[in-house]
Amino acid sequence: MTGRLDEESYARAALTYLAEPGDLQLGALVRGHGAAPMLAAIKAGTVPDFLDSGAARAAARRAMRCWQVRLTELPSADDIAGLCRAGIRLACPGDPEWPARLDDLGAAMPYALWLRGSADLRFSCVRSVAIVGARAATAYGSYVASEFAASVAERGWTVVSGGAYGVDAAAHRGALAADGVTVAVLACGVDVPYPAGHADLLDAIAAQGVVVSEWPPGRNATRLRFLVRNRTIAALAAGTVVVEAASRSGALNSARHARDLGRPLMAVPGPITSELSAGCHTVIREWQGMLVTSAADVIEYLSPLGSAAGDPSASPSASPAAGPGTGPGTDAGALLGRDALDLEAAAVLDALPSRGGMGSLKIASRAGLDPDTVLRCLGALAAVGFAERCDQGWRLRRS
Amino acid sequence: MTGRLDEESYARAALTYLAEPGDLQLGALVRGHGAAPMLAAIKAGTVPDFLDSGAARAAARRAMRCWQVRLTELPSADDIAGLCRAGIRLACPGDPEWPARLDDLGAAMPYALWLRGSADLRFSCVRSVAIVGARAATAYGSYVASEFAASVAERGWTVVSGGAYGVDAAAHRGALAADGVTVAVLACGVDVPYPAGHADLLDAIAAQGVVVSEWPPGRNATRLRFLVRNRTIAALAAGTVVVEAASRSGALNSARHARDLGRPLMAVPGPITSELSAGCHTVIREWQGMLVTSAADVIEYLSPLGSAAGDPSASPSASPAAGPGTGPGTDAGALLGRDALDLEAAAVLDALPSRGGMGSLKIASRAGLDPDTVLRCLGALAAVGFAERCDQGWRLRRS
Repeated sequence: MTGRLDEESYARAALTYLAEPGDLQLGALVRGHGAAPMLAAIKAGTVPDFLDSGAARAAARRAMRCWQVRLTELPSADDIAGLCRAGIRLACPGDPEWPARLDDLGAAMPYALWLRGSADLRFSCVRSVAIVGARAATAYGSYVASEFAASVAERGWTVVSGGAYGVDAAAHRGALAADGVTVAVLACGVDVPYPAGHADLLDAIAAQGVVVSEWPPGRNATRLRFLVRNRTIAALAAGTVVVEAASRSGALNSARHARDLGRPLMAVPGPITSELSAGCHTVIREWQGMLVTSAADVIEYLSPLGSAAGDPSASPSASPAAGPGTGPGTDAGALLGRDALDLEAAAVLDALPSRGGMGSLKIASRAGLDPDTVLRCLGALAAVGFAERCDQGWRLRRS
Repeated sequence: MTGRLDEESYARAALTYLAEPGDLQLGALVRGHGAAPMLAAIKAGTVPDFLDSGAARAAARRAMRCWQVRLTELPSADDIAGLCRAGIRLACPGDPEWPARLDDLGAAMPYALWLRGSADLRFSCVRSVAIVGARAATAYGSYVASEFAASVAERGWTVVSGGAYGVDAAAHRGALAADGVTVAVLACGVDVPYPAGHADLLDAIAAQGVVVSEWPPGRNATRLRFLVRNRTIAALAAGTVVVEAASRSGALNSARHARDLGRPLMAVPGPITSELSAGCHTVIREWQGMLVTSAADVIEYLSPLGSAAGDPSASPSASPAAGPGTGPGTDAGALLGRDALDLEAAAVLDALPSRGGMGSLKIASRAGLDPDTVLRCLGALAAVGFAERCDQGWRLRRS
């Protein structure tokens, strides 16, 4: 979403300014009735008409007072369009770039996501793994995070993490070093360089991947926001790997969200003499997390049965015939094999150059298909690792 | 068994000279018909009469030739009595010191055990854990083995291991340092100082615990004997902990025996960057071994539900009313609570001194019981951690 916002998208953007994400009451109301009526009610200072039970109206009346506090900070639709011109974009549920996995959060789903970076968030997250862990990582934890991230990135997997010091930074850097895509999910605005020492890292992530936040540009991180943010890390990724974590730590909070979402949860063991391995051992022993000792373990655990991970010729494939709006499947387990590519997608695949790159219009011309169909097929092919964007457009993905 | 051997015990001792342990054919014949008829048949060079099927007679005829090879080495009953006077003793199935757990080995059960040391093997093994691992242990592995062993020994648990360099030695030393009982199960005679660098360690184990072998005095270790010996380590202990092990290693062989016997199997995780942790991670991930990070984890896993490990006031207790020959239960899970002590055992418990020590005759006098009953009760009380032997006789066990 980079052009003019429609009413519902503007309302969702506005809610990121007015309310904290993870507010289950507001989340449920927005899911049930849309963001625009909620924004109108907050602006009007009235309880929405669609609430008819006395209890619901009373609860809403109390909550409205919180949501109204920040009305003075609310930007106009033009302000938001200005942000978008400055390299920041908005993704709302239903937008092509909205990762369908987030729907699993239910009422805790973000109202909208603010994005900064070159990668398409939805496509990036199809084959993605969250690598999380301690800020005060040991050399062992940093090494493992970096190695795992580089290895999964080399096989076409996106590394999702939180942009923090320690394990997060090592994971992002490992993915970047392998020319992979990495997603940083922040607890502050995507334009806020936090931590300050990571300003360059966040810019590098934006250049090669995408920086994501549920909070609007300019908003600062708080302790609570880190915890709220963690559910989004877990929800965006197909699975979560804990590299190093103390017994009661923020990294375990992400792991708990992954578990509660029913997502594959993994942990890397370490010396029992290290307090920073205690949380990993808890994940393995008490939370039935999978013990992983290599990136291959991670990919194997996240891949559908029988598919050779990282090998596109054997990897699962979305059906590019999926209609607009649904786009490529986001659950790897539900994806189909390459043989199941429809004729249009197969034609696009054949038209893709293996070196250099090609614009979508030229691909359309080679494939003999209309540009819209080609764009849809390219998205699906990228999502399952057959195609990738490059400076010159699109190309076959290196296997 | 230190006095004159009966015919069956002599035959079992003789079989340890003539055959290698773990010979399932001989084991099954001995279980079915007794050792004495088998020894007589081997000496006579005839197939035993009790084999009546043609196939069984043919198989026995081939095997008899192997068993007869060493007949010239066979010591007389007097020779064996001489060994026993020299501090070595024999334990056969049915003897008071025979650990009933070994019966789980079925046809692979040792013909007999040769013992050297001060501790009673059966009582020592009631609450026992095997701590096994790599000979080429890292500092981490040696530290963990020694710490675990000392901690479980402090809580009254016996440490069983193989007397080798590395993890084994660290485990034995940890138990000794904590004034605990430790059992070394050798792949050579109990009088053979192997490895040579462990002569002092083995003597220290004998002074405070017991050195055990299925091979007769004087017999040397071989590579195959280590593997055969491993099943006895696993079978003697209530559970097995793997501290450090490479992917295909002897320590994993012990672990596999524990698994195959249905005994609790545990492993200590370590850095994934260490090859010597790979076997431990395999045990956890592929063999459903419990990940343990402390001695408390080990004891909790081995203790019956609801019993506070290491606390005698809450720990399980054998019924000292068990008849002679069955002795105290050897399965901790089948033991009863302290409240279930019968009147005789309670009287013996009351008569025990908490400092110094007291001979069993004096305890009998204080408790008003006959000496045989007192000895039986002392055995049972020792087996469940309420009483212990000391230089002056018996005393209450420190909790």
